[in-house]
Amino acid sequence: MIKVGIVGGTGYAGVELLRLLTQHPHVEITTVASRSDIGVPVAEMFPNLRGRTSLRVEEAGSENLLKCDVVFFATPNGVAMQQAPQLLAAGVRVIDLAADFRIKDVADWERWYGMKHACPEWVEQAVYGLPEVNREAIRAARLIANPGCYPTAVQLGFLPLVEAGVVNLDHLVADAKSGVSGAGRKPETHILFSEAADNFKAYGVGGHRHLPEIRQGLAMRAGAAVGLTFVPHLVPMIRGIHATLYARLTADVDLQALFERRYANEPFVDVLPAGAIPETRSVRTVNLCRMAVHRPQDGDTVVVLSVIDNLVKGASGQAIQNMNIMFGIEETAGLCQVPPLP
Amino acid sequence: MIKVGIVGGTGYAGVELLRLLTQHPHVEITTVASRSDIGVPVAEMFPNLRGRTSLRVEEAGSENLLKCDVVFFATPNGVAMQQAPQLLAAGVRVIDLAADFRIKDVADWERWYGMKHACPEWVEQAVYGLPEVNREAIRAARLIANPGCYPTAVQLGFLPLVEAGVVNLDHLVADAKSGVSGAGRKPETHILFSEAADNFKAYGVGGHRHLPEIRQGLAMRAGAAVGLTFVPHLVPMIRGIHATLYARLTADVDLQALFERRYANEPFVDVLPAGAIPETRSVRTVNLCRMAVHRPQDGDTVVVLSVIDNLVKGASGQAIQNMNIMFGIEETAGLCQVPPLP
Amino acid sequence: MIKVGIVGGTGYAGVELLRLLTQHPHVEITTVASRSDIGVPVAEMFPNLRGRTSLRVEEAGSENLLKCDVVFFATPNGVAMQQAPQLLAAGVRVIDLAADFRIKDVADWERWYGMKHACPEWVEQAVYGLPEVNREAIRAARLIANPGCYPTAVQLGFLPLVEAGVVNLDHLVADAKSGVSGAGRKPETHILFSEAADNFKAYGVGGHRHLPEIRQGLAMRAGAAVGLTFVPHLVPMIRGIHATLYARLTADVDLQALFERRYANEPFVDVLPAGAIPETRSVRTVNLCRMAVHRPQDGDTVVVLSVIDNLVKGASGQAIQNMNIMFGIEETAGLCQVPPLP
Amino acid sequence: MIKVGIVGGTGYAGVELLRLLTQHPHVEITTVASRSDIGVPVAEMFPNLRGRTSLRVEEAGSENLLKCDVVFFATPNGVAMQQAPQLLAAGVRVIDLAADFRIKDVADWERWYGMKHACPEWVEQAVYGLPEVNREAIRAARLIANPGCYPTAVQLGFLPLVEAGVVNLDHLVADAKSGVSGAGRKPETHILFSEAADNFKAYGVGGHRHLPEIRQGLAMRAGAAVGLTFVPHLVPMIRGIHATLYARLTADVDLQALFERRYANEPFVDVLPAGAIPETRSVRTVNLCRMAVHRPQDGDTVVVLSVIDNLVKGASGQAIQNMNIMFGIEETAGLCQVPPLP
Repeated sequence: MIKVGIVGGTGYAGVELLRLLTQHPHVEITTVASRSDIGVPVAEMFPNLRGRTSLRVEEAGSENLLKCDVVFFATPNGVAMQQAPQLLAAGVRVIDLAADFRIKDVADWERWYGMKHACPEWVEQAVYGLPEVNREAIRAARLIANPGCYPTAVQLGFLPLVEAGVVNLDHLVADAKSGVSGAGRKPETHILFSEAADNFKAYGVGGHRHLPEIRQGLAMRAGAAVGLTFVPHLVPMIRGIHATLYARLTADVDLQALFERRYANEPFVDVLPAGAIPETRSVRTVNLCRMAVHRPQDGDTVVVLSVIDNLVKGASGQAIQNMNIMFGIEETAGLCQVPPLP
Repeated sequence: MIKVGIVGGTGYAGVELLRLLTQHPHVEITTVASRSDIGVPVAEMFPNLRGRTSLRVEEAGSENLLKCDVVFFATPNGVAMQQAPQLLAAGVRVIDLAADFRIKDVADWERWYGMKHACPEWVEQAVYGLPEVNREAIRAARLIANPGCYPTAVQLGFLPLVEAGVVNLDHLVADAKSGVSGAGRKPETHILFSEAADNFKAYGVGGHRHLPEIRQGLAMRAGAAVGLTFVPHLVPMIRGIHATLYARLTADVDLQALFERRYANEPFVDVLPAGAIPETRSVRTVNLCRMAVHRPQDGDTVVVLSVIDNLVKGASGQAIQNMNIMFGIEETAGLCQVPPLP
Repeated sequence: MIKVGIVGGTGYAGVELLRLLTQHPHVEITTVASRSDIGVPVAEMFPNLRGRTSLRVEEAGSENLLKCDVVFFATPNGVAMQQAPQLLAAGVRVIDLAADFRIKDVADWERWYGMKHACPEWVEQAVYGLPEVNREAIRAARLIANPGCYPTAVQLGFLPLVEAGVVNLDHLVADAKSGVSGAGRKPETHILFSEAADNFKAYGVGGHRHLPEIRQGLAMRAGAAVGLTFVPHLVPMIRGIHATLYARLTADVDLQALFERRYANEPFVDVLPAGAIPETRSVRTVNLCRMAVHRPQDGDTVVVLSVIDNLVKGASGQAIQNMNIMFGIEETAGLCQVPPLP
Repeated sequence: MIKVGIVGGTGYAGVELLRLLTQHPHVEITTVASRSDIGVPVAEMFPNLRGRTSLRVEEAGSENLLKCDVVFFATPNGVAMQQAPQLLAAGVRVIDLAADFRIKDVADWERWYGMKHACPEWVEQAVYGLPEVNREAIRAARLIANPGCYPTAVQLGFLPLVEAGVVNLDHLVADAKSGVSGAGRKPETHILFSEAADNFKAYGVGGHRHLPEIRQGLAMRAGAAVGLTFVPHLVPMIRGIHATLYARLTADVDLQALFERRYANEPFVDVLPAGAIPETRSVRTVNLCRMAVHRPQDGDTVVVLSVIDNLVKGASGQAIQNMNIMFGIEETAGLCQVPPLP
């Protein structure tokens, strides 16, 4: 059994790790740590876990974390970079669900995230945990930078096009929509039910922190800089991300075949048949990216529709997928649930 | 492996059976039959099942049903009573998720359901599939009348009081609330998103078909007739039933202890600690009834709050629980998921 | 023109007063005051008011309030009792939308609201602003205690029965359901979209502050104490209250006629035809209580269904109705909108 | 008073016309006609209209329509073209809220709408009722083709750019999102609450009927053909359209000034301050288009965010605005409500 610790178990990514890991056949959760709610039974904070775990919240700096095989950080940005080095030095593997180790250009990271990086040396060693791109590196990694939710949906949708070199890279457009759980569990006015329900709006149009992450990922696969306009929107639903991606084709190509080939061996990417439309509920609560590729009116604009559950393939599920790869067990272990419908 | 057939696989109870049974360790689904969509791959109708089953819809009268160990009817009222006798005669066990075999008084059934019963002789033999009351009879049953969703939540909430004889039976009140999936998947105006969202209303105040079913169940345990006012309401949510139950106490009793004792050995009933409040999402997608018992202002009125997922403990999950009991396997097999939150 | 001031213009009752009063033919809003956001244009905080008012938020203690004809307090409990005496002394009429002046028994108020009352002498003089009961007193009032949202829906539904003396007063049950806006605009975890959407639960079962208010109002009309069990619930919708009321009949009476007669001359109470079902959306955004009375199975239990918009007839609309009465203008002035549907 | 008839008063556009017109100071509704529900009181079908109108539904071909000054068709596509010629011949003015007269190229219309046009001669005479473009022509029109909901939001957002000639016309992208009421009130599975709630998906990616309408409108103002990719999506909310528009800038221009100037005198278009974000609820139930223009990272891509209520500025409100213009009364008459919030 893999001994697992979770830091920041009281947010949505944390409770989702708990939900999935309590059902994982090869995992024993030994420690849940947090800066608040210390001593509180985990099952009291999250009614869905009642009867499923007897763990209580420990201090964020609990020594028990050092006895784990792997520690997940489901904490706000800037926390993992403080605590991870000590764990890594002790031989504990670390998977950070926040953004601390995602951007290779530390100066760029510091600009977007508005703080000084605490351990730039680990940024270099960190492996960006998108298995569909980095599976081999993940296998050997000690520190995983788990991708953001939007970056997962957007990169997976653009990758076949960018890798094949069949689109103009200067004017990519990613119009993305997220359920409200993407904004976290900290109470703020704009995500109150009465504010977010029966409403739709964009946000972060001037510049969202996931923009440099997506650009870096696409540029690496394209071997060239990419020009990307990224506009996120808030949808009155709990879970789910839908990315609608637009690019101008520069070559004639069988798009359906291109996408199917690219993801033929990927257990968690499902390319729908030609003409199909993915919907967010079809991946609700599961670790899966579903996508479809369209070419409206046979013009020169390709449209990719890509959906994930922001808390699973966009966060905790992908983190567990990375753990499975790192520990050499079945990549799909603990991640095979069927989504509920309706 | 238990060979399972499903008739009526294209409604919500049907797809929920499919979701749960495709993950059941001791089941092989061999046939999905329906009056419509014949030949269509099941996974095309329900995107959540894509990649999880290669079954196609067969005709409702498919001979393959005769080769099953058990057949579930997830059909409208009045269908199972036509088809079940032939299957039963062939030694196939039958679990009807509709109301055909729930009411022992056939004349009463015919009045409430507005049709002539096709096989009154089987009504007598049918076992009402509420395991918390009838476990032993279920073990030996050939035909199960799976309880309705409201009746499950309401009976489980009232049972400890009624069995202990500590409340006035003449004026029980069950104020019940259901998510919209309880109304099924057949398109009707009042359950359109634009009609049901951001709205709340009662329905069936004059008399709902679940009323005689609840009355029969409570009377049987009370050993006397019960006077029940039952008012269902429609909640703008997808899944979930919340029953708020009111009764007048006729004896001084430790209510918390009474409820805990009654359900101490029940794997799918969870009595919350004193003072707690259950919420429907805490049982979303799982086979569980959570309840709490209150006595406001220490008066003589007891209030029970009881929640289930209408499609699971209120339909398909309970049907599988019954199957597990009938076939002598672990009662919880295939029914141990952790509900997602949020 | 009536010169109006609003204290606490930044919550939902405040913005609703602004929405309705900017369209009122006989009103000029001169001052919007608050403890926060001072100097901010009102139209910036509430996008619906953009282009409709150029007012900026003034300090809560602004002297401009003394120049008003009437001041509405849309503040948390405990604020109006501090500020109202000075305004009243200056001849300004006051309408408090909070609870400071609702409960005549000051000791009882202090117990339920957990604070010392600042001006008990004004409690006695305050008129409880339920026009359907107190219209004449309101006409002459200097200080109005505007009723709570639940108390409005519950009292209006029970009044015909209680006044006519046709029900047992010992065991009234009010099962009430409210949209999330009833919990206000202050960010708290349990009213986040991701927590409240697709969910249903009771709250305050042990004792809600609206209980003594309802009991007082009913007792006054009954001329006797009443035994009431009141259980509020949270509905995943923005606006609306639905009260389902249960009482035992002690006399044979034509319920439909009783209700129609009681409210025959009330502009803002609509008794639906026999057998009808009110829904909350039918009163969304308007100052109206719709209700229906049922007697299921012709038994001895009467069921009343009563719906209001918690922010209008349950708060700001009723406050304006009271203002209209106090100033001798048409009671319906500014309150005749048609609700949107869907 | 303008005598108004409505054909198709039983869908959402119809009830919205009724809501707005019953409050219009210069209108008397004399006839509501439909192919179904004949004889039913309008107020029974739509609870929001109870007490506001005593009209009953008349036959679709009612002679009373000939006595109207203007008749609105809130009917499915293909109905108005059958009935309008007779009314027009009798001197009745006609406003069609469906698509029958929107596309000038009749062959193109017949291809997209899959039927033969019944009166091509009237297509030519019809005026496209987008007042921000065609106000003078509307004033003199006998027959108005009221714009579609998406076309209103998309055209208003693109117009300043297209008219000024500052964007590349070959690769416009309109990523549009609509509330479910846009799909109408006819019961269909995919718009059931349980299917559409807590879900997000695109539709019509291969080609939506609003595409040729938008292209025609933009091309007319650009004086050249436009290449447009239009992808609509379904949002789990009742009302509202949000169009996110992308275009490549070909000239350096003060975008904020351009947009403010373009709409300076438009009563129903509100250009938000630089950096602002419109949300659909800010125009809920009112006849208003709110928009903001952004230029992320000061790059060469302009992003316009444009929101309307699909049933008001996207349908019935705009139709009334057109009527006001046609009859020479104040353009804003009956259209000045303040949207409710929350």
